[in-house]
This record gives sequence, structure tokens and C-alpha cells, in this order.
Amino acid sequence: MMKNNLKKIEDLTVTIVGLGVIGGGFAQSLKNIGVKTIYGIDIDEGTLRKAEEKKIITEGFVKTKDPLKKSDLVVVTLYPNIVKSFFVNNIENFKDGAIITDVIGIKGKIIEEIDPFIEKSEKKIDFIFGHPMAGREKRGIDFADSRVFQNANYILIKDKKNKKENLDLLSEIIKKMGFKSVSFLTAKEHDEIIAFTSQLTHAIAVSLVNSDNQKYDTNRFIGDSFRDLTRIAKINEDLWSELFLGNKENLLKMIQQFENELDIIKNALKNDDIGTLKEQFIISTRRREKID
Amino acid sequence: MMKNNLKKIEDLTVTIVGLGVIGGGFAQSLKNIGVKTIYGIDIDEGTLRKAEEKKIITEGFVKTKDPLKKSDLVVVTLYPNIVKSFFVNNIENFKDGAIITDVIGIKGKIIEEIDPFIEKSEKKIDFIFGHPMAGREKRGIDFADSRVFQNANYILIKDKKNKKENLDLLSEIIKKMGFKSVSFLTAKEHDEIIAFTSQLTHAIAVSLVNSDNQKYDTNRFIGDSFRDLTRIAKINEDLWSELFLGNKENLLKMIQQFENELDIIKNALKNDDIGTLKEQFIISTRRREKID
Repeated sequence: MMKNNLKKIEDLTVTIVGLGVIGGGFAQSLKNIGVKTIYGIDIDEGTLRKAEEKKIITEGFVKTKDPLKKSDLVVVTLYPNIVKSFFVNNIENFKDGAIITDVIGIKGKIIEEIDPFIEKSEKKIDFIFGHPMAGREKRGIDFADSRVFQNANYILIKDKKNKKENLDLLSEIIKKMGFKSVSFLTAKEHDEIIAFTSQLTHAIAVSLVNSDNQKYDTNRFIGDSFRDLTRIAKINEDLWSELFLGNKENLLKMIQQFENELDIIKNALKNDDIGTLKEQFIISTRRREKID
Repeated sequence: MMKNNLKKIEDLTVTIVGLGVIGGGFAQSLKNIGVKTIYGIDIDEGTLRKAEEKKIITEGFVKTKDPLKKSDLVVVTLYPNIVKSFFVNNIENFKDGAIITDVIGIKGKIIEEIDPFIEKSEKKIDFIFGHPMAGREKRGIDFADSRVFQNANYILIKDKKNKKENLDLLSEIIKKMGFKSVSFLTAKEHDEIIAFTSQLTHAIAVSLVNSDNQKYDTNRFIGDSFRDLTRIAKINEDLWSELFLGNKENLLKMIQQFENELDIIKNALKNDDIGTLKEQFIISTRRREKID
């Protein structure tokens, strides 16, 4: 796969933009697989110093121009609402031929916003949109840990504009980092399946916690099931309100599908229909056994 | 607390009825805290031999009379639908003054069924109904492990018929086994809160998995959130259909409360109301931070 690439992975110059829990994880992970030059960009000097002390970046920058102009790969791990402005403001700073990638949890909206700028630009950059399906409830460089990526799924958006050798290279880097699968989807496909596996689960967890009528000291009456189902109810409100609204049509559809299934259980309860309950449980058991 | 009890915990003779994942866990756990004589009753000879080989029981029995007549404490870990018949068929076999306890996940129904037999009986037994909030998705003695009880919650149903010294003794045993809390509730209270923390979570997990339209290879597009929210969708259909129907009024109420919260999110999506979304996320985050 590497035969068309002049540089080996170790010799690539990489910049991580935003050294939070995901950006920091990327830096550590790239260092682990042997990348020699990893620059970090962050608005917070303290974060840059921490990343340097942890030796997960070669050097940290608040100003973007110097690291970007040298970088073969730029991983933008900023919040969705600032990715566009970062990209547009820096479009002249990227190195010719550079691969740019992001980590935003929905893809249609950001691609729609950024694509016109890529097309207008005379820079030969290759923006490969991506989504690592791994995260932490905690924020910031202190909680960054490459282990979160081990055996996780990764989705790349394959567009006809993207160069095959760049898709191959990024895919190879991702697998080396420890992700178990790299899937290529269109933005539309991505946003459909992610509304189900990610946004719906967060909507459910939030609603479950918030539906507690607080008549009892809940903490004394929970088991692992409640703990597991509500872990992600501790949620970054700025990020997730954007993700929800940016994928609202798909999410509303998935909530409807989910409620249809819940209706089956409700009706079975109302009708003392033990057969239907068992059937639902047998189906869910069989399906869950296939998930790992 | 022990001053009114003639016997120390170690010197109690205990029988575990049903050596599945919970019964086996009890046996191991009681052995760990020093109980010298632990009998096991099971209809499956192979299970009894395994429990003997693991040295978590002193001796296994298919017939109930001999172990029960010697036992100061009997822990019945059978499925809900056979607890009543076990109890009624063996009521003359229990030792005078014995404490009997169960582990069924709903309490109103089983107490209603069993109470008349306790009242009719001339045996001086003390049935303390209970619910250890710990379990495993896997079944059987092979997966029994006392560690599942560590830091878990336990609920005991306190009735005016129960002797204070017996409630104290059972509570002390439970804490020694590693449970982090023992709460005393009425059966009505238990079934209300459990409909929320346990049955609702299972209804949600099952519905989530079953609402997958299977257009994609879901396994490649999930993160930990989906894994966590669906773990309990692998569910014992015989046990849980009984638990659901045995607590249907409370469960339907809790599903309604949950759907009301989901409606708030749905409406916020439809109205592009980012303020309400953030508010819901802030509430859920604050509540989830208090759960451990």
C-alpha cells in the first residue's frame, strides 16, 4: 500500500490542531507508532507545555503558520463550530499536497461548509473527513490516552476528490494506531448510521437520567445496568447540542424507530402478552451476541 | 448488633437453594467470610458436583429435607415462578427460627403469594425478602463469582413480622459479603424504584438493539456508548418477562416518564432549540456526576 508514497509514516511531519482528550490521544498514539515530528497547535499555552512535558509533541505552537507549512498530515480535533473558520483562515498556510483530516461526529454539515473553500483554493490539499469512534467523558490533555483508540472503529469519508494513495496512507496510519476497523462511507451514510449508534444512545441516556422523579435516593438502588446506560449522560453540552442539531433529521428518524420498539413492549405489558415480550428478548439477545 | 444472636456468623448453617450464577456467588461469598457449613440444593447433580469441587459448598443435595432442617439461614435463588412452590412444599422442612431470604427482582407479587403460607404455618420461620442488585449476563455455576457483589447495592424488605435481630444479622452478613449498602424499603417502594433503575433500563436496551434497521454492518460503526447501552439486551427471556409483567403498572409509568423526557429532546430538535438541548444536557450531567 505504501509503494506510491515517498515518505514512510515515521518520516511524516504531523500537526495536531487542538490538544484536548482526542488531540492529545492522537499525539500520543502517533508517537507510539514512531512518527518523529509531531507539532501541536492550541490556544492554551499551558496545554502546549503539558504536551511537551509528556513528550507527546515535538513542539507546541499558538500561531498556526509555521507548523502547518511543514506538515504532511494535519489532524484537526477542534469543536465542530470552529473547524470551518480554522480551515478557511489557514487555507494558505497548508503545505502543498498535505492531507487534512478532522474528527467531527457528523459529516454532512461540515463537508458542505468546507467543500466550496477546498474547490476554490489553488492549494493542492487533500481533505479526508473522518470520525474515530472513541471518546472519553472527561475533557482536556490530562485525560488524553492513546489506549482509548485500541480496538475502536474508524470511519473515513471517501470522496472522488480524495487521492487513493492518501486514503491508503491515512487508513494504514489509523490501523497502526490500534483501531480495529476503518470503514469508507459517504457522508450521507455516515450520518445515518451514526444517528443510530451514537446520537440516539446519547439522547436515551440523557432522557433516562432526567426522567428520575427523585422520590428515592437513586444511588442506593442502582445496579450496573443503570450505571452503564447512563454513563454518557455526563455530556459536553456545547459539542453535543451541535451534533444533535446538525443531524436532526436522521436523529428524529432513529428516535421514532426506537419508540416503535418501545411501543411493542408497552403494548405487550398492557395486554399481559408474555409471548411478545419473550420474542423481543430473544431477538435482542441474538443481536447483542453478534456485537463486540 | 450481634449481641442478641446466639451464634456467630461463622457458626451458622446456611443452605443455598439453586446454584446458578447468583446462588453460586452467594456460596463463594459466604465461604470467603468464614461460614463453615454451607449446603447447596440443586436439581442438577452436575452443578452440585462442580460446587463441591470448587469447595464453595460443604455438601450438595438434590433432596431438600436434610439440609433445610439443619439450616439457620436459607438463601433461595430460584427463578420467581418456582420460589413459591419451593417454599410451600418445604415449609415443614425448615428449622424452627430459621431465616429464609430470596433474591427476586420484584417484591410485591412474591410477598403477596407467600405471606398467607407464612401466616398459616406453625413453624417459627422468619422470611426476610431481599434483592441483591448485582447480576451477570451469563448463567450457571461456571460464571458464579463473589466479586460481582463487591460495592453493589442490596435492598431488604422490612416487615413488622420480621425480627429485629434477624434483620440486623442478615444486614451484617450482606455487608461482610462486600455489598456497599443495605437499604430497607417496603415492597411497594422497592417495586417503584426498581421499575426505574432496573426494568426500564432493560426495556430501553432491548428496544435500542431491536430498533436497528440493519441497513449497515452495525458492528463496524459503534463506539463504547452503544456497547454500554446494549450490554443488558442479552437477556434471560423467561426471567425478565416475569419481572416485567409482575411489575407492569410501575414499569409503564416509568416508560411514560422516560418518553416525556425524550419528547423534550424531540421537540427541541424540531424547533432548532439549542437552549433546551443544552439545558437537558446540563441537568443530566449534574445528575450523573452524583451517581457512583
